[in-house]
Amino acid sequence: MTALPRPVKAPTGSQLHCKSWLTEAAYRMLQNNLDPDVAENPDALVVYGGIGKAARNWDAFEAILKSLRELNDDETLLVQSGKPVGVFRTHPDAPRVLLANSNLVPAWATWEHFHELDRKGLMMYGQMTAGSWIYIGSQGIVQGTYETFAEAARQHFGGIAKGKWILTAGLGGMGGAQPLAATFAGFCSLNIECQQSRIDFRLKTRYVDEQATDLDDALARIAAHTAAGRAVSVALLGNAAEVLPELVKRGVKPDLVTDQTSAHDLIHGYCPPGWTVEQWKTAAADPARHAELKAAAAAGCATHVRAMLAFKAQGIPTVDYGNNIRQVAKDQGVTNAFDFPGFVPAYVRPLFCEGKGPFRWVALSGDPEDIRKTDAKLKELFPHHAALHRWLDMAAERIAFQGLPARICWLGLGERHLAGLAFNEMVKRGELKAPIVIGRDHLDSGSVASPNRETEGMRDGSDAVSDWPLLNALLNTAGGATWVSLHHGGGVGMGYSQHSGVVIVCDGTDAAAQRLSRVLWNDPATGVMRHADAGYDTAQACARQHELNLPSL
Amino acid sequence: MTALPRPVKAPTGSQLHCKSWLTEAAYRMLQNNLDPDVAENPDALVVYGGIGKAARNWDAFEAILKSLRELNDDETLLVQSGKPVGVFRTHPDAPRVLLANSNLVPAWATWEHFHELDRKGLMMYGQMTAGSWIYIGSQGIVQGTYETFAEAARQHFGGIAKGKWILTAGLGGMGGAQPLAATFAGFCSLNIECQQSRIDFRLKTRYVDEQATDLDDALARIAAHTAAGRAVSVALLGNAAEVLPELVKRGVKPDLVTDQTSAHDLIHGYCPPGWTVEQWKTAAADPARHAELKAAAAAGCATHVRAMLAFKAQGIPTVDYGNNIRQVAKDQGVTNAFDFPGFVPAYVRPLFCEGKGPFRWVALSGDPEDIRKTDAKLKELFPHHAALHRWLDMAAERIAFQGLPARICWLGLGERHLAGLAFNEMVKRGELKAPIVIGRDHLDSGSVASPNRETEGMRDGSDAVSDWPLLNALLNTAGGATWVSLHHGGGVGMGYSQHSGVVIVCDGTDAAAQRLSRVLWNDPATGVMRHADAGYDTAQACARQHELNLPSL
Ligand SMILES: NC(=O)c1ccc[n+]([C@@H]2O[C@H](COP(=O)([O-])OP(=O)(O)OC[C@H]3O[C@@H](n4cnc5c(N)ncnc54)[C@H](O)[C@@H]3O)[C@@H](O)[C@H]2O)c1
Ligand SMILES: NC(=O)c1ccc[n+]([C@@H]2O[C@H](COP(=O)([O-])OP(=O)(O)OC[C@H]3O[C@@H](n4cnc5c(N)ncnc54)[C@H](O)[C@@H]3O)[C@@H](O)[C@H]2O)c1
Repeated sequence: MTALPRPVKAPTGSQLHCKSWLTEAAYRMLQNNLDPDVAENPDALVVYGGIGKAARNWDAFEAILKSLRELNDDETLLVQSGKPVGVFRTHPDAPRVLLANSNLVPAWATWEHFHELDRKGLMMYGQMTAGSWIYIGSQGIVQGTYETFAEAARQHFGGIAKGKWILTAGLGGMGGAQPLAATFAGFCSLNIECQQSRIDFRLKTRYVDEQATDLDDALARIAAHTAAGRAVSVALLGNAAEVLPELVKRGVKPDLVTDQTSAHDLIHGYCPPGWTVEQWKTAAADPARHAELKAAAAAGCATHVRAMLAFKAQGIPTVDYGNNIRQVAKDQGVTNAFDFPGFVPAYVRPLFCEGKGPFRWVALSGDPEDIRKTDAKLKELFPHHAALHRWLDMAAERIAFQGLPARICWLGLGERHLAGLAFNEMVKRGELKAPIVIGRDHLDSGSVASPNRETEGMRDGSDAVSDWPLLNALLNTAGGATWVSLHHGGGVGMGYSQHSGVVIVCDGTDAAAQRLSRVLWNDPATGVMRHADAGYDTAQACARQHELNLPSL
Repeated sequence: MTALPRPVKAPTGSQLHCKSWLTEAAYRMLQNNLDPDVAENPDALVVYGGIGKAARNWDAFEAILKSLRELNDDETLLVQSGKPVGVFRTHPDAPRVLLANSNLVPAWATWEHFHELDRKGLMMYGQMTAGSWIYIGSQGIVQGTYETFAEAARQHFGGIAKGKWILTAGLGGMGGAQPLAATFAGFCSLNIECQQSRIDFRLKTRYVDEQATDLDDALARIAAHTAAGRAVSVALLGNAAEVLPELVKRGVKPDLVTDQTSAHDLIHGYCPPGWTVEQWKTAAADPARHAELKAAAAAGCATHVRAMLAFKAQGIPTVDYGNNIRQVAKDQGVTNAFDFPGFVPAYVRPLFCEGKGPFRWVALSGDPEDIRKTDAKLKELFPHHAALHRWLDMAAERIAFQGLPARICWLGLGERHLAGLAFNEMVKRGELKAPIVIGRDHLDSGSVASPNRETEGMRDGSDAVSDWPLLNALLNTAGGATWVSLHHGGGVGMGYSQHSGVVIVCDGTDAAAQRLSRVLWNDPATGVMRHADAGYDTAQACARQHELNLPSL
């Protein structure tokens, strides 16, 4: 090993460092993933999500860049868990890079074996977009939460969130996106957080609008804002396990109830009711007191979930936001804890049924103006897509770019290829300073098998069938995506998921247009296919509407 | 479900039933896999290897045929665990079919969960070439078994097998090749099989020479044949878990011990000692009795392996022939089950390091004359390859074709593409009556991760890393193979392997020549790459000799 950590920034502008824009795109995106403004720990090549990396080590990183600089238009580079292992002759319509990250034969698919291989230098954890070079910073969290809330509005309120309010808790790393996302979706929100420092941080970054002095004040503010039809977010310092039961007792009726305290971690994640934050932190720092703390936190979660169930019993939509609080409560004897659903089956799956998921693109020029132009183009393409317009306006106003300018929005089957072709046309006409690269999260409609998250509770019980993401990757390779990846263990850890990534470049050529029209149609279509096969009516209707050829339907 | 079982035969001749020879090839090969002369249990769509199937059910089978008849040259059919799920637009140089069989998210990758899904109609077990439509009957494994036994003779007996005998069990789809391969390699063999029907089938096809009436008769025959230096194969009706311990008790000393019962599948693959075949089949057909059956079969495997270990302890070469029986025994508490090696590290890995593995091809015309011509062409192409000539001569003489005429031989990197191009040229010139289809087993150099078999004891400890077969499948898709498949659990059962298949058609066109030159080079090259990366000198030398571009070497 000779290469040392160094600060990395993607090149910008219209000058090529590789032999084509296809390889240049990979070259820039790999480096963008490790930009200090993007990555969580760039020196360790860690992009996000625990130890999700973009390259196995610094030697491998430099070797990938070198291979990309030299790669010809009829060649394909193979990357095995972040290390470049081979260059082979393919053809111009084949992907330029194929990646496989963290894949282990099932009986060995544990963190223990992974770490053993990692220590030997034989593996890396690719997470989802870290190892497939299309991470774009925290914009994705806000957008995903926004889509969830927007879908809730569609399902429960005919799409009109005005005058409605969300009750939630937790303003931490991910939960802090809730108030901003709620506002974007048109909701008021009451956000309970037990640490004043967290509230301060969200106020400072404008992710939450205002703080109430106490519960009465909070309810008065919510009442005023909802009455006036203003989508304002209100923070309240307090403990959710105390505030929620009090709200139930008072007969207060939120319009949607969820929670993003870190209930999955009963030591560092959940402040027990009746405890001060100082008491909590002191106990968390003292292993001798962990048993006591865990018991108190778990009891708090049970109280918290009982209150959520009480809201649910009144007909108020209530969901678990992926923090395992239902399981904690169930383990405490709340036998009906799973009476309210997780957020994927409740709100995300209906979108997946139409091939909708986190579509994203990046301006390789580095010029924010290019993203502004694509934002405008998207509005023009989908003039009646109100939620999209709303998101684009708010994102442009409130979301700071990290690294290369990028945008995310959820588009579905029949929309994505139109966006790709339009962007390609803009590149062709010289309206943008350089090509655009399009990708998506692996958390998407047709690209993931993850029975504790994306494929929880599939209608036909096919949660664990991973044929689907493998077919997705093979089809995207066949269609001519620019790079395609197959990962294991993203999001939920080793053993619990398999998923695929796809990235495709709009370089303004006619050949790219052909590839875009195939790949950006087929990729979401595999999601519709997967959900149609599982028996979802909306997916079957969507497949019929788009005249998909699904021989077994 | 409406379609009923029916006898299936691949069409022959030069008339197309589909729109091109690429789709016609898949159309014929799927049907050929289910030809009663080829498949072990065609009514149940079972081709070989326990419950290795070619299609999920009869509806799915008919639907695949229909899709293939209608498929256009720029379309790709997706097959999910034996069911056709989608047809998508790709391009002429993309595969016409992409298959994913039996893949499960690792934490759910067990036979229990598989069977649950299978019962719900959501899965099938694809084994290796069953679900990827390139099984060619027992010949497929004869060559590999021959290579293995010949290598064993070289390692243990100075290359002279005369007067030596092999003790083995299992005369199923693959195991049935053992007696003939042993004879080819110069050995006598005693082959224990619990089903008379299986013995009858092997006698009929001349894969086994004679059947003994009981153990005493069997040993007398072996004694006579070895004494006379005749390479004769003897079948014995019996249960290996009863016969082997008896042989140990009697102090009988074979010269080589192995086994090919289907121990990887404890429900359908291994008859418990003390059970009649009828009792076994009845229990296998009744899910309520599976737990009982599994326990009895596993206990039988443990007894069986203990006897193998006893032979090993006497200095008799003993190898696991890839049926996972050591793992089953180990799980039963036979802690030293892995004291004898698998056949791959013992005999096959040196071949894998040069990209050598089971290359095969089929005459779509159905005319044996086409195979005779390709045999001759191969001898002409490789005039100094004496072992190849010897094999081709013996095969032509002794191997009965099953279904469409086919040939197998082990070729490596730098050889396979020459064969493919030569066959394509023969088709082009009209020397053959119809196109040739080329494929290989998933048990090959670059296509499998299977820590108890193909990747057992890799030099760098990377046995369980399945990035490699995934990259192989992606690259073969990118290169333009005609169909590509990704499977889980082949050979060694659920949880223990991931592997990929590839098939490519020589239709005589220049476009096919381009694809053949890429795919039949790249596919074995990924095997050389994988072994070079693991630190094998011969693989690194082979990579240098063939000027592979391996950036990390
Ligand atoms: N499945 C998904 O996609 C998904 C998405 C987002 C978040 N999550 C889950 O949501 C949870 C939150 O994630 P995060 O990154 O924001 O965690 P975090 O630890 O950064 O934040 C949790 C916040 O909750 C607050 N809190 C703890 N106990 C409280 C109580 N009793 N009352 C009020 N506030 C309390 C803490 O002070 C902290 O600010 C995690 O469990 C995470 O796994 C899942
Ligand atoms: N690694 C390799 O290349 C390789 C090659 C061939 C086979 N295999 C493995 O070998 C096994 C056999 O494959 P197959 O296709 O022949 O399977 P199969 O199921 O068609 O045949 C297995 C045979 O074993 C017989 N049998 C079962 N239990 C028995 C017992 N207790 N005593 C005697 N006979 C018994 C069955 O009656 C059957 O005929 C599988 O596990 C396969 O994966 C591996």
